[in-house]
Amino acid sequence: MAALTCSASDLQSLLGGAANATAAAEYICTRFVAVSDHFVDTAYAIDNTYLLFSAYLVFAMQLGFAMLCAGSVRAKNTMNIMLTNVLDAATGGLFYYLFGFAFAFESPSNRFIGKQFFGLESFPSPSFDYGYFLYQWAFAIAAAGITSGSIAERTQFVSYLIYSSFLTGLVYPIVSHWFWSANGWASAGRADGNLLFGSGVIDFAGYGVVHMVGEIAGLWGALIEGPRMERFDHEGKSMALRGYSGTLVVLGTFILWFGWYGFNPGSFLNILKTYRDVGSYYGQWSAIGRTAVTTTLAGSSAALTTLFGKRMLAGNWNVTDACNGLLAWVLIGCNKLVDKFHYDDPLEAAQLHGGCGAWGIIFTALFAKETYINEIYSRKPRRPYGLLMGGGGRLLAAHMVQILLITRWMSVTMGTLLWILHKFKLLRILADEEMAGMDLTSHGGLAYAYYDEHDDEMQKKSFMMTKVDPYV
Amino acid sequence: MAALTCSASDLQSLLGGAANATAAAEYICTRFVAVSDHFVDTAYAIDNTYLLFSAYLVFAMQLGFAMLCAGSVRAKNTMNIMLTNVLDAATGGLFYYLFGFAFAFESPSNRFIGKQFFGLESFPSPSFDYGYFLYQWAFAIAAAGITSGSIAERTQFVSYLIYSSFLTGLVYPIVSHWFWSANGWASAGRADGNLLFGSGVIDFAGYGVVHMVGEIAGLWGALIEGPRMERFDHEGKSMALRGYSGTLVVLGTFILWFGWYGFNPGSFLNILKTYRDVGSYYGQWSAIGRTAVTTTLAGSSAALTTLFGKRMLAGNWNVTDACNGLLAWVLIGCNKLVDKFHYDDPLEAAQLHGGCGAWGIIFTALFAKETYINEIYSRKPRRPYGLLMGGGGRLLAAHMVQILLITRWMSVTMGTLLWILHKFKLLRILADEEMAGMDLTSHGGLAYAYYDEHDDEMQKKSFMMTKVDPYV
Amino acid sequence: MAALTCSASDLQSLLGGAANATAAAEYICTRFVAVSDHFVDTAYAIDNTYLLFSAYLVFAMQLGFAMLCAGSVRAKNTMNIMLTNVLDAATGGLFYYLFGFAFAFESPSNRFIGKQFFGLESFPSPSFDYGYFLYQWAFAIAAAGITSGSIAERTQFVSYLIYSSFLTGLVYPIVSHWFWSANGWASAGRADGNLLFGSGVIDFAGYGVVHMVGEIAGLWGALIEGPRMERFDHEGKSMALRGYSGTLVVLGTFILWFGWYGFNPGSFLNILKTYRDVGSYYGQWSAIGRTAVTTTLAGSSAALTTLFGKRMLAGNWNVTDACNGLLAWVLIGCNKLVDKFHYDDPLEAAQLHGGCGAWGIIFTALFAKETYINEIYSRKPRRPYGLLMGGGGRLLAAHMVQILLITRWMSVTMGTLLWILHKFKLLRILADEEMAGMDLTSHGGLAYAYYDEHDDEMQKKSFMMTKVDPYV
Repeated sequence: MAALTCSASDLQSLLGGAANATAAAEYICTRFVAVSDHFVDTAYAIDNTYLLFSAYLVFAMQLGFAMLCAGSVRAKNTMNIMLTNVLDAATGGLFYYLFGFAFAFESPSNRFIGKQFFGLESFPSPSFDYGYFLYQWAFAIAAAGITSGSIAERTQFVSYLIYSSFLTGLVYPIVSHWFWSANGWASAGRADGNLLFGSGVIDFAGYGVVHMVGEIAGLWGALIEGPRMERFDHEGKSMALRGYSGTLVVLGTFILWFGWYGFNPGSFLNILKTYRDVGSYYGQWSAIGRTAVTTTLAGSSAALTTLFGKRMLAGNWNVTDACNGLLAWVLIGCNKLVDKFHYDDPLEAAQLHGGCGAWGIIFTALFAKETYINEIYSRKPRRPYGLLMGGGGRLLAAHMVQILLITRWMSVTMGTLLWILHKFKLLRILADEEMAGMDLTSHGGLAYAYYDEHDDEMQKKSFMMTKVDPYV
Repeated sequence: MAALTCSASDLQSLLGGAANATAAAEYICTRFVAVSDHFVDTAYAIDNTYLLFSAYLVFAMQLGFAMLCAGSVRAKNTMNIMLTNVLDAATGGLFYYLFGFAFAFESPSNRFIGKQFFGLESFPSPSFDYGYFLYQWAFAIAAAGITSGSIAERTQFVSYLIYSSFLTGLVYPIVSHWFWSANGWASAGRADGNLLFGSGVIDFAGYGVVHMVGEIAGLWGALIEGPRMERFDHEGKSMALRGYSGTLVVLGTFILWFGWYGFNPGSFLNILKTYRDVGSYYGQWSAIGRTAVTTTLAGSSAALTTLFGKRMLAGNWNVTDACNGLLAWVLIGCNKLVDKFHYDDPLEAAQLHGGCGAWGIIFTALFAKETYINEIYSRKPRRPYGLLMGGGGRLLAAHMVQILLITRWMSVTMGTLLWILHKFKLLRILADEEMAGMDLTSHGGLAYAYYDEHDDEMQKKSFMMTKVDPYV
Repeated sequence: MAALTCSASDLQSLLGGAANATAAAEYICTRFVAVSDHFVDTAYAIDNTYLLFSAYLVFAMQLGFAMLCAGSVRAKNTMNIMLTNVLDAATGGLFYYLFGFAFAFESPSNRFIGKQFFGLESFPSPSFDYGYFLYQWAFAIAAAGITSGSIAERTQFVSYLIYSSFLTGLVYPIVSHWFWSANGWASAGRADGNLLFGSGVIDFAGYGVVHMVGEIAGLWGALIEGPRMERFDHEGKSMALRGYSGTLVVLGTFILWFGWYGFNPGSFLNILKTYRDVGSYYGQWSAIGRTAVTTTLAGSSAALTTLFGKRMLAGNWNVTDACNGLLAWVLIGCNKLVDKFHYDDPLEAAQLHGGCGAWGIIFTALFAKETYINEIYSRKPRRPYGLLMGGGGRLLAAHMVQILLITRWMSVTMGTLLWILHKFKLLRILADEEMAGMDLTSHGGLAYAYYDEHDDEMQKKSFMMTKVDPYV
């Protein structure tokens, strides 16, 4: 690879010893330095354009969650669940700005928690620009969004506020520090090269950091609260509580798929990086494109697998199942399992993210290609790669540690928090509220106006007589 | 900063006087010129990619308006309000192409109105490319979209057509010329440096040009038309007329938030510009990222403020309030105020955009940092900045002029137009139409099919008996 | 245009004959080579960013189709039609990956079908990167999406599965090979310069390859299946079967418009290409911006034309008509025509895409500007351009061949397939199913939950008594 930098003294000795040669060398080199600087600026512009628009797509997933949730719960709890999604974004914005990002990332610091950049002080730095913050914030609120599904239709709103702030401001940032910060104890990109099992954890797009974090919080919430009323009948048989609108489920799922293209390919964080020599056609843009393609193929295969699987099990072609399957394809098995334990997760979020998160972590440790790892981590000492690709067991060891530690950390922090809320009777709503629906009791009214408030009383009564249940 | 340009004659004298030296200098310089040209092309490609995708996001806000409106009005007027949103985009496209852009922008011309580029003739020019037109069009239709909310559920469709064409084709473009064109009398970026109060108006993303313009048009419309029937009871007490669907409100709000990332950060128009030396990490990409972050934080804080504020005032956690608050947080106060005056704005658009637009204009004049202003305006003479930052009162003076002039201009133009339409009885629909809903009377049917047209007559009757009101 | 490349031997002779001169020349040239390589990498990063985000927008159109369809059919078939849209993306993903892309594109190969890159083997290559695959996949599923509208509300799901796989895996890829591959017999960009009528077919964004392909498949489907029950009365009079939700129609249409900005401007595939000299302001970024603007103006004019046209014909301002017109403006005429033939296309997809696809093909042949053609195809021999622009009839000849060949190919392949499915009674659902709606009979339940499954039986009965039809 030819050098782009230029040294006036080197060039001077080449051009001859005279005074003119000095000036000539200076003249030429100054221009090469300028060229080099212009490339630096150009790269910042390209990489920030790439990262910012990826962040916008990840943010759009919050809309996807809101619509998926609104379609999956019963109409009487629509306003409640959508408010939790709006809140994840809003409290997440505030707390991740004040504390979260500081706990998660910093340049020189300790292995367990960061302590710089509170309120984005001394921002931007050579390492971090605002686009990076925005991208990480969008990830943080996605983790919170996962949990909201698990505890839907029965959680007091105040508890949700506390839970959401705690998760995005403290618990999630610390986990992301461990695996994604240049100083995290388990990060594969540690600046000092002191890697866990000589490998570190390769958690590319948050299998552990986002999905398992969101899922274990949700799991504890759903376990402590117990199932929704009538979710299991007197003999313990599982009863479906149908969501309100299949259309909203499809809308939400497609938006989540759209946002995935920010979530997965965007996790490279920048696009202008060459993998072989400069001037080759093969670079990070190819790896990004490949990630977009594998995202597409994974979703496609999963949707088809679930569709045909459910066809065989239940006898119909079910679009909401295909949608959920599309989001995670080990879902069917997980659902069978949790039903046995009378576990009720209205959005199947713990099954979906827990099952797939853990699967993704193990899968990477088994199948990671040496080439791909070398493309990302340029460090010299040969790195472990996938066990089944001949790369040894050290990556797997690191990844098992990740699963265990995240499970433990989340159980200790969020599990405890949710249990305390439960003990203080702040977690689950009252039975009456649950029957009537939270939109009526806590959120000022139903999502859908079935009659106008100024209809004459006769009309209203005849209407209400046939539709006495509040959530129809 | 090292120079990227190359002068053959300079280099020749450095390399020696011989014929060879001339050729060598020519040879080297030709290549540096080529490098420089390649950087120009690269910058065009990057900046246009950035601007075009930002424009697409701003366009998506039109979908956000449509859904927000569809959820906020009663079902009987859904088709009507969505048609106004489709129309803003369509008539806006036509009229902004034919006249609007020409009135708004041109290279050498007068201070009050532009007069080149009708129908995009002699486009592109060194100053303007098509991406710029697209971006400005998306802003123009956003201004029209704001107004449609204020006069919802009671305005004749023909009036809306006239109003929308007039606004996007003439009235809005002239305002944007004043503040955003290189020749506008109040522009902070005037080419001739002859700035209003030595400062000009800094209207970064349309506080005045978009929000106040849309709001004052809507204000006059709502005032002239008066409130919707039954919006205030016999004693003048404010009565809520609930919108049809909270889900659509949340959908629309999230899409608007998504579009904001085009609206605010996109207002920089290009991304490849360095702020310090070339080759530094700090440039317009940082300012763009910062704007995306402040957009996020502003929305987040506003949503939380409104949520808690309403909780204290009304006793429930209201998602539609949080959504509206998210869009503008001085909303609660404005709403209290307008209720006193029996002002009815179905989307609270005038309160939201008027209150926040004016607040944004004043806020900038008070708090604009000197550094940020110098990053954008490279002109030598020191510029005024925020009053409370020690930058003097000239920026505030310019901004007060902006508020007054926009208010006056909009009142004279749109106020008059709406008043004339009112006098000719073209503005407000008849009471019967208002009761029945415009979808039935003007738009060929309801938005939602509650029964199939080929049901046997018995069924249909029994259905209609219980649901006689057309908009249930 | 100054050269960016550098030759050490050339420079050596210029700098003088000494050993030093050799080294100096080497030194300088090495740096210019590095600069040149850096520009190559930079261009890959920019062009892939542009193409990938364009692909994401095109993918979003699938969501647009799903919502447009869900709003246009009756509620009882909502889950069915949305599942077809999810499936187009999913089976499309799988089959286009396994076979489709290989049939469509390859570097050195025959004129009728490609035979490399099965399962994306030996990807990426200097000619194709993953972003290109993703973009082409998004186009392939759009073609399938068009057809789903034509055969809505009466097609067996199994047939749809077969049809969709066959179309995206085989039939569509072959057509796109003919017109878009560097070896296609009718491609205007043939590598060997052996062009059909010395011109080749200029099918920029799929007038023929996407719209006509989707439309003719849908046309045969709708013809073979016949109209939906009660679509025409006993005397053959056309009866409207109203779709369920105008709001979903508007939502879908706006998303399709949003996606268009990926579909049309994205079809340039890269953005960093200059049209005049390097260093000029005019390049592919301008052509891309122009395409975004013409896309906007075409949609705007078409929406207004249809809106006013329908106002005159039907007496009301109809938003769904404006939306459909926005998507294709020769629609009104086509609709009049097909009603005569008792042709029933629930989404008016064949009229919309067929009419406009053919019109676009002819329009290009009549009005293509010489300048624009030269900007894209740099080959020396003067190329034919639009007939009415003085460019001769050869482009028109090539385009007529395109219309004929696509029609014939699609009739032979998809027409036959659909006819076989029909003969084996796999195509159309039974009358009972059609009355009850497919969501109940094949997809596990209705899209919308009108009452809760655990309401006491009394309530449920009283509810069902008044709303006995399943799709209300």
